[in-house]
Amino acid sequence: MINETFKAMLGQKSVIRNLSEFATKRGQEIGYENVFDFSLGNPSVPVPEAFTKEMIDLLNTRSTMELHGYSPSLGIESVRQAVADSLNRRFGMTYKASDIFMTSGAAGAVAHAIRAVTVPGDEVIVFAPYFPEYNHYVGGTGAVLKLVPPDTKAFQIDFDKFEEMLTPSVKAVLVNTPNNPTGVVYSEETLERLASILRAKSKEFGFPIYLISDEPYREILFGGAKIHFVSSYYEHSICCYSFSKSLSVPGERIGYIAVNPADPDSTTIATMCGQISRGIGHNCPPSIIQLAVSKCLDITSDMSVYEKNMQLLYGELVHLDFEVVKPGGTFYIFPKALEEDAVAFCNKALKYDLVLVPADSFGCPGYFRMAYCIDTEKVERSLTALRKFVAAEY
Amino acid sequence: MINETFKAMLGQKSVIRNLSEFATKRGQEIGYENVFDFSLGNPSVPVPEAFTKEMIDLLNTRSTMELHGYSPSLGIESVRQAVADSLNRRFGMTYKASDIFMTSGAAGAVAHAIRAVTVPGDEVIVFAPYFPEYNHYVGGTGAVLKLVPPDTKAFQIDFDKFEEMLTPSVKAVLVNTPNNPTGVVYSEETLERLASILRAKSKEFGFPIYLISDEPYREILFGGAKIHFVSSYYEHSICCYSFSKSLSVPGERIGYIAVNPADPDSTTIATMCGQISRGIGHNCPPSIIQLAVSKCLDITSDMSVYEKNMQLLYGELVHLDFEVVKPGGTFYIFPKALEEDAVAFCNKALKYDLVLVPADSFGCPGYFRMAYCIDTEKVERSLTALRKFVAAEY
Repeated sequence: MINETFKAMLGQKSVIRNLSEFATKRGQEIGYENVFDFSLGNPSVPVPEAFTKEMIDLLNTRSTMELHGYSPSLGIESVRQAVADSLNRRFGMTYKASDIFMTSGAAGAVAHAIRAVTVPGDEVIVFAPYFPEYNHYVGGTGAVLKLVPPDTKAFQIDFDKFEEMLTPSVKAVLVNTPNNPTGVVYSEETLERLASILRAKSKEFGFPIYLISDEPYREILFGGAKIHFVSSYYEHSICCYSFSKSLSVPGERIGYIAVNPADPDSTTIATMCGQISRGIGHNCPPSIIQLAVSKCLDITSDMSVYEKNMQLLYGELVHLDFEVVKPGGTFYIFPKALEEDAVAFCNKALKYDLVLVPADSFGCPGYFRMAYCIDTEKVERSLTALRKFVAAEY
Repeated sequence: MINETFKAMLGQKSVIRNLSEFATKRGQEIGYENVFDFSLGNPSVPVPEAFTKEMIDLLNTRSTMELHGYSPSLGIESVRQAVADSLNRRFGMTYKASDIFMTSGAAGAVAHAIRAVTVPGDEVIVFAPYFPEYNHYVGGTGAVLKLVPPDTKAFQIDFDKFEEMLTPSVKAVLVNTPNNPTGVVYSEETLERLASILRAKSKEFGFPIYLISDEPYREILFGGAKIHFVSSYYEHSICCYSFSKSLSVPGERIGYIAVNPADPDSTTIATMCGQISRGIGHNCPPSIIQLAVSKCLDITSDMSVYEKNMQLLYGELVHLDFEVVKPGGTFYIFPKALEEDAVAFCNKALKYDLVLVPADSFGCPGYFRMAYCIDTEKVERSLTALRKFVAAEY
């Protein structure tokens, strides 16, 4: 008989999906170029030529059986080694190929990491505001998501609330920096304090609390900022990466898990991920995509447009007296709505063809998210709409 | 803390994997060309040129954002429509795009299908001998695999045993024809009788018992035989397909679920698969691979070599007085060992550099599997080794 749990999920369409569908429909009426659609986090810059060239080279030069044959379940050995080498070179780490597991994007990485270090009933701490799909990645394993309320001043971490919730039931903490939806990057101070608390509590509880770091936006940093590599701060850490944003290939579903070699179980955890995959029938990401990204580990798309868009929006939002923290990366910005009910606020914005996402489902009511991975020209035109909206409604 | 269930799985290396590793190691000593490695079901014929050409065309002509952007979670609409059209054209079905869900190979398809139509504790019937990974696809959902003993005469279905086990706890029946490991194809009579029993029992129990049909070998049929499309026999059926064997692309992890439109919940089940994916973080197969296979739905690699290899092996096995059913498809053959203990038999064969897989883990002790997806020239040389082995040991 049909599994009613999954059937019931069909009714729960995400707010983002609904808004995106509105934008598409409205686009059919007035031309999509006139809809200021800030709903979707879909990369808007071209894939680096090196990736395309590598794909074509592979297709032209490799034997088809070598190129399209089964990949080992943990990923192609040379690809895992290349990922380890790149992380070591860039971040001064000491990963071995055996600490790396190739995944279907960061989604697959996070879901596998949670399954590896929890059992049903264990708690996983997440910080609001957060990416709503975490509910599925955590809930799908039988673990329980515990949400730390937001630090709305700076969107760093409310450490008092965090420490209150950090009981022995917590087996993992899931962070996302640079952050979706705030665009904020955790400071070194935040990362150091987080590591120090986790280290102390791990010692007190007698088991390692794992830090799962969801890093799809790692390479999108503004103002020439240097990457604070989360795993370099804490030994029991699992880096979950996706090439979706850095190479603009979200449809190709490719990423990896890198388990900190300082954790005594690093290779065990990576190897377990292969076993976890068997039960869901997913096995490993496509061979050709693994091979192609392995040649593009140290490059990214030209992502300067995101910073340009951020500057335009941030300037206008501040000018219009929005309460907003300046993003340090990603392609998101997260202002406070001009009335308490962000859903009502975003509904009013639709009248001005501004598609904004209320942050209730991100665990931060009263705020809204704008995804500015769109053409700068459109961002510029949207500022007029934003001014009109605020002037007329508030 | 590390999940001990998955950790414990690390110790349980599969027999096939162990044998394959032996073959590789022995190959380093005497040259791999001298190891008669029948262990792995890895396609040995080149990918059709049309697939490679389509991949290169996509890379050369599409905008990178269109080509590598997010795919809808059920698969790209045009691809789902093309799959439905092809099945309708080839098998006289009436699939709609909404009945199709694109998957990571047949493994992902079967695992999703089971999750969709069972809840933990439900029973799923499987017929011995069977592909051992089914233990993971079924067990991973919390459902319970129930094994019907083999019909060793013809490797069709032992219907008496099947009907005994078909209680109201059974929510799905999983079949695999053409079959791994036997190479046998279910006859029309078998499929009709299976459908008739399922129809009667569904009526008696008051709910549909789903027939999940795992069809990665659908296109590998010998003697010019016509495909009996399983779903055309029974309305509550879910076809699970993979392009791994038909296009020789097992590393690209691409397949689909097609839910029989005669089932009133067909579209609901396909749509639910998208929700099931969220919980495991797998989402959908890569965009470019979806687009490429959608242009190759009605073609296959040149698979005539498998039939040639089968004829050689079958002839020799019969000549040596093995009890063996002639395969109707796939690249497997499944003889009875010449002593009761097939593990001992296969161990002795290693002395002659013959790598055969004992069928204990396939639920059929006393038999062994040979995967003849290898060069015909090597199959020919293996016959001498086989003769020597039998003459010396039995």
